Amino acid sequence: MQENNFTRDFDRLFNPRSVAVVGASNMLGKWGFNMPMNLIGGGYRGDLLMVNPREERVLGFPAYPTLKDIKGEIDLVVVAIPARKVADVLSEAAEKGVRNAIVVSSNFGEVGEEGARMERKVADIANQAGITIVGPNTMGIYSKTSSLCCLGAPVFPLEGGVGFVSQSGNLGVQLMTWGYRKGVGFSRFVGSGNAANTDISDWLEYLGGDPETDTIILYIEGIKDGRRFLEVARRITPHKPVIALKAGKGQQGERAVLSHSGSLAGPFELFQGAMEQAGIIEAETTEELVDLAAAFSALPIPRGSRVGVMTLGGGWGVAAADSFDREGLELAVLPRDVISELDKFLPSFWSRRNPVDIVGNVQRKNHYRVMDALATCDEVDILITMGTLMGRDFWLENMFKTSVRPFLNMLRYRIAMLPFFQLSIWKGFRDSVTRRGEHNPEGSGGINPGEAWQWTDTAIIHRIKRLMQQERKPIIAVAVNEGESSASFRMRKAGVFTASTPERAARVAGKLARYSRVLSNHNTST
Amino acid sequence: MQENNFTRDFDRLFNPRSVAVVGASNMLGKWGFNMPMNLIGGGYRGDLLMVNPREERVLGFPAYPTLKDIKGEIDLVVVAIPARKVADVLSEAAEKGVRNAIVVSSNFGEVGEEGARMERKVADIANQAGITIVGPNTMGIYSKTSSLCCLGAPVFPLEGGVGFVSQSGNLGVQLMTWGYRKGVGFSRFVGSGNAANTDISDWLEYLGGDPETDTIILYIEGIKDGRRFLEVARRITPHKPVIALKAGKGQQGERAVLSHSGSLAGPFELFQGAMEQAGIIEAETTEELVDLAAAFSALPIPRGSRVGVMTLGGGWGVAAADSFDREGLELAVLPRDVISELDKFLPSFWSRRNPVDIVGNVQRKNHYRVMDALATCDEVDILITMGTLMGRDFWLENMFKTSVRPFLNMLRYRIAMLPFFQLSIWKGFRDSVTRRGEHNPEGSGGINPGEAWQWTDTAIIHRIKRLMQQERKPIIAVAVNEGESSASFRMRKAGVFTASTPERAARVAGKLARYSRVLSNHNTST
Repeated sequence: MQENNFTRDFDRLFNPRSVAVVGASNMLGKWGFNMPMNLIGGGYRGDLLMVNPREERVLGFPAYPTLKDIKGEIDLVVVAIPARKVADVLSEAAEKGVRNAIVVSSNFGEVGEEGARMERKVADIANQAGITIVGPNTMGIYSKTSSLCCLGAPVFPLEGGVGFVSQSGNLGVQLMTWGYRKGVGFSRFVGSGNAANTDISDWLEYLGGDPETDTIILYIEGIKDGRRFLEVARRITPHKPVIALKAGKGQQGERAVLSHSGSLAGPFELFQGAMEQAGIIEAETTEELVDLAAAFSALPIPRGSRVGVMTLGGGWGVAAADSFDREGLELAVLPRDVISELDKFLPSFWSRRNPVDIVGNVQRKNHYRVMDALATCDEVDILITMGTLMGRDFWLENMFKTSVRPFLNMLRYRIAMLPFFQLSIWKGFRDSVTRRGEHNPEGSGGINPGEAWQWTDTAIIHRIKRLMQQERKPIIAVAVNEGESSASFRMRKAGVFTASTPERAARVAGKLARYSRVLSNHNTST
Repeated sequence: MQENNFTRDFDRLFNPRSVAVVGASNMLGKWGFNMPMNLIGGGYRGDLLMVNPREERVLGFPAYPTLKDIKGEIDLVVVAIPARKVADVLSEAAEKGVRNAIVVSSNFGEVGEEGARMERKVADIANQAGITIVGPNTMGIYSKTSSLCCLGAPVFPLEGGVGFVSQSGNLGVQLMTWGYRKGVGFSRFVGSGNAANTDISDWLEYLGGDPETDTIILYIEGIKDGRRFLEVARRITPHKPVIALKAGKGQQGERAVLSHSGSLAGPFELFQGAMEQAGIIEAETTEELVDLAAAFSALPIPRGSRVGVMTLGGGWGVAAADSFDREGLELAVLPRDVISELDKFLPSFWSRRNPVDIVGNVQRKNHYRVMDALATCDEVDILITMGTLMGRDFWLENMFKTSVRPFLNMLRYRIAMLPFFQLSIWKGFRDSVTRRGEHNPEGSGGINPGEAWQWTDTAIIHRIKRLMQQERKPIIAVAVNEGESSASFRMRKAGVFTASTPERAARVAGKLARYSRVLSNHNTST
């Protein structure tokens, strides 16, 4: 480990008044082009200073031959030139009194002994001058507070409370893109790269104290000082959830890490146990890391691990419950009064158990009544609701399929019957209006046309949100038709979390319940 | 178990010349409305006969008071009336010599003892008359060969070779919808429901011999005759892959099954072992079941389990390899000649190991050269390629972000510099054209504008397809930006499989390798 006994100035890093880009370029696809373009695209308002000895202007800005030619203070230097030239630039930055540098250049410690030697040299210069290096071999950083998209990829996150440290830059920015589609807002992002004179604990500590950050997520390949990491985490987890995806699992995973960052992953099981002790929530896959970021930043923490499940179609309830054992969840046992409440409006043959299958009931009002009954039940800590969300695209698609397709096929194959077909449908619609809301113990009384608005996602979003605020319990909606697109985005923006499969809903529920145990262990131990 | 020693007529079930719907209705949302609407919507061309004593016409078709009022033969009866009336309809159907009935009505054996008694009565009538009952409590069936969408939901599958039996109808049709988005084509679907006088083995056996079906997928909650099931499976798996999602895992999963279908799931581990012995491939989640259906119907079976991984961003390679151990996969060891081949065009600091990180190289030609080198390498049985697929939507979004956003922000915040900004970009573009294709050992030489077409998904689809045909090895493309939408759909339609995350790619690769072991065990034992 390098010596780095200087006081860091992370405030200047995340809120720089000026950014200088060394190696700034006009050529599409080069790092020196992408970074300033994304700074501009992200809406950064401070001074942008381009350094390139061979150009007069870069992206319209006057180009300086070297850092030293810049008058005035530089808060942050971005270095995007070949590795062997980086040390000289760092020396210049040191002379200018710069405190933070983002080194995107690769070909350092991740490559071999020669690269590692260069990296140590760069780190020594930085440590002597009190410069914090992000990288080398990094995709950069994002900071909400100064709209700083200092990134190698055009990712402009939603603003929010998720702080993210990633030891893979590419993976990190991609997960932010996934997050964007799910409506996850970020406060900060750090692609920590080779971490020449930082450790992941430095970032974790900063985010722990950062008022803009309420949820922390980490992608970890290797940690230099494990003890410090766990100690820092232990201080944070009672106040903010820390979620980590630890990469390099098993023999093959370790080999892949070696090929990627040249670091040794170490035995995963040991690390896993330590994470759990420090109250860190483990994400098992990249997908899950984003799911958990979305869930923890949108949902209240449950009081326990008993789950109420409502479903339109029993198979989905089973698919959700199938991972309950491994997630440490259990199906809530419904008390008598809830069962009698549900008896009032569910068909007589409903199962009278949890998961509550609403058995093909298409009276929207009844979906809401089931949701209310389960959410207000004291035996239920977490509610998973399935089959009640349509997804706008799917809804439109379904409308088309159920109306236009049959019409077109009548036209094609049975044209003589077409007017009768239309008359019949009209008659049925009239009957539905007459008999709306009718209770039928033998099953569905057909759709109630007066409920059209209630079938929209917006209606159910409002309902879920109100219920969550009222009951202070997480409600996880499964939107099986949406994947990552429109509805989920709108829902999460509205502060409601959706999972795209029942299994993913159960995993999220499990991690929420686990965090509730972290909190209560902390409260009993202090 | 009921006696059912009659010869089934599945050919009439899947290719009916006439379908009668008992309980046909004009009311939106009723089963008796949905089923015939979807039959029409799906393009069924045979006779549609509506049975409803209270209507003159249903959906434009003349309505018959009872089945007996219909002249001529009925190949298939759909029963959508309350449970207590079903037995009488079955008796009428028996008199008419009907051989197949789809009973959608619920409130039978899944409810309790009284329901079970009714179900036995219905089954007895059917068994005596030689009628196969699909259901009761089913969402219906689909059959490619007569465009028969006899389903309770408006799902009109793509035509293809996947045969699907699901013990949950709702889940089944939803998975077909997922399949549709992924370009998976189906040959048959059966929602087997309560299975009054069938067992899942009956369907499995039929699909095993069905020339329209090349891949079989199953969603299983419980099996009546386990021995027969495994025996049937053992005969099929050496010729067609059989993929099963077994629901009801652990204590909570079993409780959920009890609530859903009233059946006992039995200890999962026992079943899992038996499945493996019979050569059945296990899907662990609903998502995976669809992934595997897509993969097995699009990809060649590998010869082994050594995986070559190429990635634009090392973290993705790690995320993929992290599940290799549990999937029984290993990272292929690259031979010297492949490494020297890659040395020719990758930057000097590439890792010289598998996963092959193309380290930010944005020369498209080089992506293809890496893909070629790995696919043709004898040490590689399966290739996973990541970061080479953009996804159309993402590509357009990125174009917008990288060009329009910076432009707008220049306009807003730095309008005086805007003309210089545009001039700079033009100059950079001109330089890129002059220096196109230049080899630069220190990293990216910028994007080559002459490669624009090569950056489209269509270009890479063609490349992957050709390589797969030539090498007879599965190539799994990861499309991290697409989720389930446009690109994946188009790719799979083109016979190329995409996974939406590296972990899902690894799982699919693992299952393909597992099936290759099933095949080679069979070949050595016979």
